[in-house]
Amino acid sequence: MKIARIVGTTISTIEDEKVRDKKLLICAETDQKGKVFGKSYVAVDLVDAGEGDLVLTCHGSAARQTHLTKDSPVDAVVMAVLDELEVDGEIVFRM
Amino acid sequence: MKIARIVGTTISTIEDEKVRDKKLLICAETDQKGKVFGKSYVAVDLVDAGEGDLVLTCHGSAARQTHLTKDSPVDAVVMAVLDELEVDGEIVFRM
Amino acid sequence: MKIARIVGTTISTIEDEKVRDKKLLICAETDQKGKVFGKSYVAVDLVDAGEGDLVLTCHGSAARQTHLTKDSPVDAVVMAVLDELEVDGEIVFRM
Amino acid sequence: MKIARIVGTTISTIEDEKVRDKKLLICAETDQKGKVFGKSYVAVDLVDAGEGDLVLTCHGSAARQTHLTKDSPVDAVVMAVLDELEVDGEIVFRM
Amino acid sequence: MKIARIVGTTISTIEDEKVRDKKLLICAETDQKGKVFGKSYVAVDLVDAGEGDLVLTCHGSAARQTHLTKDSPVDAVVMAVLDELEVDGEIVFRM
Repeated sequence: MKIARIVGTTISTIEDEKVRDKKLLICAETDQKGKVFGKSYVAVDLVDAGEGDLVLTCHGSAARQTHLTKDSPVDAVVMAVLDELEVDGEIVFRM
Repeated sequence: MKIARIVGTTISTIEDEKVRDKKLLICAETDQKGKVFGKSYVAVDLVDAGEGDLVLTCHGSAARQTHLTKDSPVDAVVMAVLDELEVDGEIVFRM
Repeated sequence: MKIARIVGTTISTIEDEKVRDKKLLICAETDQKGKVFGKSYVAVDLVDAGEGDLVLTCHGSAARQTHLTKDSPVDAVVMAVLDELEVDGEIVFRM
Repeated sequence: MKIARIVGTTISTIEDEKVRDKKLLICAETDQKGKVFGKSYVAVDLVDAGEGDLVLTCHGSAARQTHLTKDSPVDAVVMAVLDELEVDGEIVFRM
Repeated sequence: MKIARIVGTTISTIEDEKVRDKKLLICAETDQKGKVFGKSYVAVDLVDAGEGDLVLTCHGSAARQTHLTKDSPVDAVVMAVLDELEVDGEIVFRM
C-alpha cells in the first residue's frame, strides 16, 4: 500500500455504471512521514476520506476485493485513513 | 487511475481479433492540474475521447473489467473524460 | 500498452514447455514519436514482428489473454505492429 | 520480491473487516546489501517481523495467496525475514 | 520479462510452506547487453540458475503459472537462462 494525502476531487463522465456513482479522489503520494513527493493519481474512496487526510491506497487487482469495486474497471482505492505513523520509535504523524 | 491527456492516435496491425476494431489512443500522463509530464502510453478508448481531452486511464487487470475488453490482451483503457479537477480548494481544470 | 522498437532477439534455455518454442524479442521502449529511451525488456512475439519494427507491447496478466500464452509464465507480449502514429495532428511515424 | 527494512508501524481506521485486525508495517526498500534507498510503502505482516528487521515483501495479486490475506484489499505482504544475504560470494548481511 | 544477472543468494525464515523450500536468488536488472544497472530484487529459481548467469525473470501473476509456484505468495521467478543476446545484428552476449 502507498501512503498518500488526499489533495483534491474530480468530476468526470464515466461510461461504466459500476464506477459512475463513486467518489474519485486525487491522491498525492507521500514519504513515511506524510510529506508529499512524486506524482498524483486518482483512487476510489472506500472510507469517506476528505481533503487533507493522510490515507493508505491499494493498487492493482487488490483494489477490486471489496463490495463497492468488485468487477469494476478500478485500479486504486483509498482503503484506510491513517491515525498515526511511528518511524524509528518516534510518532511522526498523528491525526 | 492516472490523469492523462489524449495526444494522438495509432493505426496498427493487430493479430488478436478482440482488440482489432478498438480505438487505441496515445495518452500522455499529466500532473494533478492537467499539465503533461513523463511518458506516453497507449490505451483502448471506452468513452469516445478525442485529442486534447483530459481523461482517467485505468491499468492492469482492471482494464479488462468491461464488455469491450473482457478476455482481451489489453492492459490500459480510457475509462473517464474529466470535466473538472479541484485541488486544495481551487478549480484547476474545467472542460 | 507501451510503444517500443524491436532491437534484438534472444536464445535461452527455458524449463517451461509452454514458453520454450516461442520467439522472445528484445524491446526498447520509445516515446510517442518512436524514439528509443529508457530501458529494454523481453516480450513474446504474437505478430511476427522483426528487428526495427515499431510495436505495441502489453504487460501483466493481459499478456496471457491469448491462445499462445494462456497459463504460461509470460508477463509481456508484442501484440501489434504499428503502421502509423499521429500526435497533435501530425503524422510522426509511418511504416 | 523486494528487499526491505521495517522502519515503522501504522495505526489506521480501515473499513474492510478482513484487513482491520492485521499488523500494517512501514517498509523502506533497500539495495542488495540491506542499505535503505528509495521510497517507503506499507505491507501486511505475515511473519511477525519487528522494527529494524530486513525482510522480503511480495506485491500485487501474489500478496493475496495466503490464508491471512485471501480476498482482501491488500497489495503487499511481508513474507520472509532475511537471515543472510550473500552477494558476489561474500556475506553482506547476517542477522 | 526483465533481463537480469544473478548476483547472490538469500537465507530466510518463511512462514508459507509452499515457498519455504524454494531457492530465492538475488537478481540485478541489466540493460540489453547484460550490463547491470538499477536495482536488485529477489526471484524464485525455476531453472537451476547460478551466480553470474544472465537470466530472464517474469513478474506479477505470471510468476505463479508454474507447478512450483502455483498459489504461492511469489511475485517473481527466474524462468530462463540466456544463452545469447543479439542486438542490432550483433551478438552482444554469448554464454
